[in-house]
Amino acid sequence: MKLYSYFRSSAAYRVRIALNLKGLDPEYIPVHLVKNGGEQHSPEYHQINPTELIPAWIEKNIQDEFTLTQSLSILEYLEEKYPDVALLPQDFQQRALIRAVSQSIACDIHPLNNLRVLQYLSNTLAISDEQKTTWYRHWIETGFKALEIQLKNSNGQFCFGETASFADCCLIPQVYNALRFKIDLTLYPKIQAIYQHCNTLSAFQNAAPEAQADAA
Amino acid sequence: MKLYSYFRSSAAYRVRIALNLKGLDPEYIPVHLVKNGGEQHSPEYHQINPTELIPAWIEKNIQDEFTLTQSLSILEYLEEKYPDVALLPQDFQQRALIRAVSQSIACDIHPLNNLRVLQYLSNTLAISDEQKTTWYRHWIETGFKALEIQLKNSNGQFCFGETASFADCCLIPQVYNALRFKIDLTLYPKIQAIYQHCNTLSAFQNAAPEAQADAA
Repeated sequence: MKLYSYFRSSAAYRVRIALNLKGLDPEYIPVHLVKNGGEQHSPEYHQINPTELIPAWIEKNIQDEFTLTQSLSILEYLEEKYPDVALLPQDFQQRALIRAVSQSIACDIHPLNNLRVLQYLSNTLAISDEQKTTWYRHWIETGFKALEIQLKNSNGQFCFGETASFADCCLIPQVYNALRFKIDLTLYPKIQAIYQHCNTLSAFQNAAPEAQADAA
Repeated sequence: MKLYSYFRSSAAYRVRIALNLKGLDPEYIPVHLVKNGGEQHSPEYHQINPTELIPAWIEKNIQDEFTLTQSLSILEYLEEKYPDVALLPQDFQQRALIRAVSQSIACDIHPLNNLRVLQYLSNTLAISDEQKTTWYRHWIETGFKALEIQLKNSNGQFCFGETASFADCCLIPQVYNALRFKIDLTLYPKIQAIYQHCNTLSAFQNAAPEAQADAA
């Protein structure tokens, strides 16, 4: 098993948390998104993931090789294949609500602040750094305001229920990201409490950007 | 069962296809995204979906009410609750690949061209209509180039296998959208073939924007 990752990628960070929670330890292959014009655009990586985005997951055995992209589809696959530590409950409605929060982050917040989008804003649209920061904060704040309501039933430890789920795998990287852009977390007390609690757990600590080999 | 929808919303269109394929016929409640400053921002709709995005799904019975947002989480929920017409196969790897293509569309193409993003580009960043069209086409073309590779094993009827799946529910609305912006589909022969085939089927025809009550 191999995970193609970049220490700061939110999407890779989600998968790293899930792997740690499930006790899986794949080979970690760093792909530097900035150096050399972005190693995700190399012919080698393009073969693995034609979208040229991080992460990618590869399983090899004697018979065949299986390559999978998209962080949430990797999470669903790990959940089906390694169900012992469950990151989704059995109840259909609870599963659905957890997926909805995960997708609110993965579809409505994160893609707008992805590196390639920020590069387009600077390089093609020539907007100022100040405008870019305003853009970045706007989508996080819009998303967090709604998330704070969606998480109103959280116990302040995890997004849903008494254990970590897909939603926590998505939320913690997004908050890490928001803090880099100095978002005031005190405006979102549920999100802040969940972030603080999850980061007391080794599965989350060991998935953090600064704990990765390529963070140096 | 109620679906809060807007005829032109790609995300609602995905759910409409899935509902038709599964033979479900919920009450259809239109939310006009442009009129009255955007009805998705009304206090009534904000109560239903604090992200103020379309679609939302509501199930009511005597005991309780269940509200769900995010098109892909609604698809997963429908798949678990109404499995008779399956939109995901049993094989873990195939399920994962279908989810990956669905998420490539729902996370990497569509969010960048959503109405609220185009409004921000015009209203806050004051970019020209020409720049906005270039932006729009850029993200579709970037996504379609990769999708064409990801769909290389398609039989030219559906994205995966011999029946419709989540991937077709996501692809057809995205292509519909691309055609409004005059993307040249002949550059993407697999995508074009799947689009043409799916649109011969009544489940897809009846989900199209122009077939909705609020299209008038």
